[in-house]
Amino acid sequence: MSIHKARPLADAIRFLAIDAIVRAGEGHQGVPLGMAEIATALFTRHLKFNPADPQWPDRDRFVLSNGHGSMLLYALLYLTGYPHFGLDALKSFREMGSHCAGHPEFDPALGIEVTTGPLGQGIANAFGMAVAEACQNARFGDGIVDHYTYAFVGDGCLQEGIGQEMISLAGHLQLGKLILCWDDNQITDDGSTSLSISEDVSARFRVAGWHVIEVDGHDLEAVSAALVIARRDPRPSMIACRTVIARGIARLQGQRGGHSGKLFDADADAARTALGWPHAPFEVPADVLDEWRGAGRRNEGEYRAWQERVAALPAGARAEFERIQAGRLPDGWRDVLDAYRRRAVEAAESGEAQAGITISGEINDLLVPYLPERMVGCADLEAPTGHKRSLQAFTASERGGAYVHCGVREHLMGAMANGMAAHGGVIALAVTYLAFSDYERPAMRMAALMGLPVKFVFSHDSIGVGRNGPTHQPVEILASLRAMPNMRVFRPADAVEAAECWTLALEHRSGPSTLVFARQALPTVRTTHADGNLSQRGAYVLAEANGDRRRVTLIATGSEVALALAARTRLQEEGIPTAVVSMPCCEIFDEQDAAYRMSVLGAGTVRVAVEAAVRFGWDRYLGERGGFVGMPGFGASGPAEALYEHFGITPAHIAAEAKRHLASDKG
Amino acid sequence: MSIHKARPLADAIRFLAIDAIVRAGEGHQGVPLGMAEIATALFTRHLKFNPADPQWPDRDRFVLSNGHGSMLLYALLYLTGYPHFGLDALKSFREMGSHCAGHPEFDPALGIEVTTGPLGQGIANAFGMAVAEACQNARFGDGIVDHYTYAFVGDGCLQEGIGQEMISLAGHLQLGKLILCWDDNQITDDGSTSLSISEDVSARFRVAGWHVIEVDGHDLEAVSAALVIARRDPRPSMIACRTVIARGIARLQGQRGGHSGKLFDADADAARTALGWPHAPFEVPADVLDEWRGAGRRNEGEYRAWQERVAALPAGARAEFERIQAGRLPDGWRDVLDAYRRRAVEAAESGEAQAGITISGEINDLLVPYLPERMVGCADLEAPTGHKRSLQAFTASERGGAYVHCGVREHLMGAMANGMAAHGGVIALAVTYLAFSDYERPAMRMAALMGLPVKFVFSHDSIGVGRNGPTHQPVEILASLRAMPNMRVFRPADAVEAAECWTLALEHRSGPSTLVFARQALPTVRTTHADGNLSQRGAYVLAEANGDRRRVTLIATGSEVALALAARTRLQEEGIPTAVVSMPCCEIFDEQDAAYRMSVLGAGTVRVAVEAAVRFGWDRYLGERGGFVGMPGFGASGPAEALYEHFGITPAHIAAEAKRHLASDKG
Repeated sequence: MSIHKARPLADAIRFLAIDAIVRAGEGHQGVPLGMAEIATALFTRHLKFNPADPQWPDRDRFVLSNGHGSMLLYALLYLTGYPHFGLDALKSFREMGSHCAGHPEFDPALGIEVTTGPLGQGIANAFGMAVAEACQNARFGDGIVDHYTYAFVGDGCLQEGIGQEMISLAGHLQLGKLILCWDDNQITDDGSTSLSISEDVSARFRVAGWHVIEVDGHDLEAVSAALVIARRDPRPSMIACRTVIARGIARLQGQRGGHSGKLFDADADAARTALGWPHAPFEVPADVLDEWRGAGRRNEGEYRAWQERVAALPAGARAEFERIQAGRLPDGWRDVLDAYRRRAVEAAESGEAQAGITISGEINDLLVPYLPERMVGCADLEAPTGHKRSLQAFTASERGGAYVHCGVREHLMGAMANGMAAHGGVIALAVTYLAFSDYERPAMRMAALMGLPVKFVFSHDSIGVGRNGPTHQPVEILASLRAMPNMRVFRPADAVEAAECWTLALEHRSGPSTLVFARQALPTVRTTHADGNLSQRGAYVLAEANGDRRRVTLIATGSEVALALAARTRLQEEGIPTAVVSMPCCEIFDEQDAAYRMSVLGAGTVRVAVEAAVRFGWDRYLGERGGFVGMPGFGASGPAEALYEHFGITPAHIAAEAKRHLASDKG
Repeated sequence: MSIHKARPLADAIRFLAIDAIVRAGEGHQGVPLGMAEIATALFTRHLKFNPADPQWPDRDRFVLSNGHGSMLLYALLYLTGYPHFGLDALKSFREMGSHCAGHPEFDPALGIEVTTGPLGQGIANAFGMAVAEACQNARFGDGIVDHYTYAFVGDGCLQEGIGQEMISLAGHLQLGKLILCWDDNQITDDGSTSLSISEDVSARFRVAGWHVIEVDGHDLEAVSAALVIARRDPRPSMIACRTVIARGIARLQGQRGGHSGKLFDADADAARTALGWPHAPFEVPADVLDEWRGAGRRNEGEYRAWQERVAALPAGARAEFERIQAGRLPDGWRDVLDAYRRRAVEAAESGEAQAGITISGEINDLLVPYLPERMVGCADLEAPTGHKRSLQAFTASERGGAYVHCGVREHLMGAMANGMAAHGGVIALAVTYLAFSDYERPAMRMAALMGLPVKFVFSHDSIGVGRNGPTHQPVEILASLRAMPNMRVFRPADAVEAAECWTLALEHRSGPSTLVFARQALPTVRTTHADGNLSQRGAYVLAEANGDRRRVTLIATGSEVALALAARTRLQEEGIPTAVVSMPCCEIFDEQDAAYRMSVLGAGTVRVAVEAAVRFGWDRYLGERGGFVGMPGFGASGPAEALYEHFGITPAHIAAEAKRHLASDKG
């Protein structure tokens, strides 16, 4: 491609972006106008992709981390010929139901690899994709898995802590197939980047072990050459592209307003004159469009060759590769968990209870031979969370490992897991303490929004943490996660429920699951084996009331189920027919039909919920006269037993609360 | 102090820590044993403090960012003579009610500057303290405000994104009086730091414009010399102290287990032999204790001189200094807000409505002359959040400014605000979009836990954000913040309520306030002036039902109050007596007596809550037959009006929902 042909290719991006933004009446022109040459270099010469099969497993991944510049992506998808991105789609930019949403929204079947917008997370997703690629490359070889992950990134992503976490860990892990193109336009929303940063960003990357190349981001040949070098370098690469924000709009380029200042028809006209683009809005001249469409077909040969290599794989390897790409679970793993449940019931007789989180680690270790696609990230809490066991570490020199030592970087860990899940071929787990989920939460939200089946695993789920004190004791966190749409929160009561909840979480593919476990030992409350998965309706009657008519329903989760059972014994002894409901997953329970829900909750009974957490969110189960035994506020530093006593989360207090409400019910 | 005298001083820390941890049966010995010499150098030679007046405003601040090493702090407080830290306190380490909690818990009257434990936040708090100092130094001069902020920091704090954000911004702002001592022991919980980091940490600081000195952390003289140099350097300083974790416990030192591996009596005995410390547990020989207590009295002269300088201030300046230190509000500001409320009612007649966030910016700008101690941080959203207005920026060269351009670093911003509030003399605001509160949330939790009166201000509070789409549209975030203990969440309906809520937030000193504002225009719903603050009970009847008996109560917040009023009109037209309750703050309403609450909620009425957010948490007001009009899940990308229509948050749908519940009530 000669230079005089390259220029119109980039300008085609510019004018599609300008026209769509003018038409929508709002949008962010800074990125598509500033990165047009960079994008042209990448998409026409380097990126391995096939618009006819957007989900080609061995495609290069492309992440627009500066997602506000979404029109850049949509223009590229149109120009290269992705079927869902016709001109009509571009013309509906930012309208309800458009594929061209304000920010790119995850839809890999259409060509959008990941939802981006909350800054910093995109490059952390890209990091996760690169880890997934390296791991699958180690397993299936270069012929089957061998692709790059490219991310465009702005200043905001790099200022965010998660961006810095990513830089540090990607350098450490030497993810050589991760390549960033930094839109170094020296402008953020507030104006000059000099308002809030002075450091040499390239030097910061170099300190972390990255390969850095600095180029003029409007020199397509220079960018292209840098991409060649970047691909050959064994280190992760950052191409610092010096650009002019909103280049082409004379009134705004290089200015603060270039970011997202409103564009008018006059701006579009002036740009047409300045750049010599006489074409009507949304019109790309045929020769330019042909060139772009040719770029979109550029990898067809490579695509077919790859298909042939997959077809030539031994049957077992091929089936396994296709299985994990499809996210299908293999045979056998459920039997393992069923057998585990049976053993847990048997072991209950010995009375020896294990820590909740240890149980989860044990279950996951049993799954290792069945689910080799599982990858576990952990934020420097290997010993107290125990999910490494027989897994090997994924390191700079050992790509076959399935355990990523994330360091003390929870936010990166969560977004890495999202990136792995979006990449495909991975069941991603992210493990830390529940109190630190707040650090990870922005990524959890994105998993829920994207519907990614990530498993967020947490230990130390309550005041049961004990003497590390209130900073480490979640009290509001269960509620805050249950408030999140499309997030399932599991809090199993014992080893049996833990196996059931892990079964449900692994089967759940349309969104993330959060699994929280106690630090302390969980005595087995399920003392008889059930053939079915009792947790699968979210809540169930663990112990029905003795006597003619149930008068009290105690609803509990996790470590408090055992306390509710003890309270039930007291109440029954006083002649009050009392049932205990275990509710390992509120969200699944809420999806059940009204008849089932009422049969569990007990129509006309006094209901008392028991959870070592705040009441917020529980009232929907309690009715107007319901009671709650839990935490009035933050915890305290002291032994777990003393804390449970201090905060009144005891069988005696639960029983008293039930009786108090029974009395007021009569009155 | 000679070297042979220095060694026992450091060992006194070591053995107090060992003895307390052995006695408690658990704890983190790594930090107190590894940083004993560093702490001794700082506290005996450099730190400006007075145990007899822990809250001396011009004391140096000391933050133990690696808060798990809490016994280091408690040992120092005992040794230097803080009254609340006798041997009895040390012996109660990690017991309920002890001042020696598992992690240090904010109590400046006792000598604990800030709660630390969630990693990275401590150094970000220290950053905020240094900003507060610089700003007050500019205002009151060196004679009154001239102190350093020292923070001890481990590898975890520096791996966290917030730590990296702090490094970047502190370098940019050239906070020369901020000095970190890095406990470079090359060990984290998982073992060697080489598992998760390869970069040259000192180089990373240098890139950001820090002054870095590398020393042997067990060489007290070297550390002391480095502190002298650090204090003179105009840049923020990081003293990289190469240390051996758990130094003194032969079995664990320099090992992974040094961090918090269980200590036994035998370890304590072996350490006594190895270090030549023949003294009984908790016994510090008199000469060593005398030396330490002398260090505690070291600044008495400076303290008295400072008092004299304050006493010599002109009366006005002195009163002002004392006022802001005490956190007292001045006269006059309430009148300004009352006048603003009156003007808002008058302006309502013109029908021109302002964006919610613009109203908040306007209110805050009116307060500038009255509350010069207000400092506003904003995460690169100056234009769309509008809280800068007449404020000047706080920069490396202009310390008198009160607006900190935080860059795209929300977590740092929140923790900075906490540090400012903990420092004192500042009313701290942190401003960004509500969707990004998840990035800031770990700091908000700590503000709530510490009871710091920080004002967390958010714009773009719902689907009213419009076409930037679901990443930028909060739906679950109000619920997740309301779930947090000790956090007040205000969502005002119009300019009048905004002034009322700001009044309440400024008056509230025992915890943080979150104030959320709409991006879109808020028509004035309070069309008559009330002398009192109607928001002060959290919720109130904005429009009582017409007719004999109220049958429907519509409860709404923020931008949805106007929709509820329109729905009420429809219902009244159909002969259904309907009241509208505005509930700008659930938490305050929940504190009211039952009679008031029921008078507002309307006993026996059908209640429908209206909020463009999820239902989670609303059921406590609704009763078993209550209704809710809000968001079923995440939002979408489209114009705000189209989204409200799409999700059915309209007067017609609210009225229909009320009638549906009325009908089922009858049935």
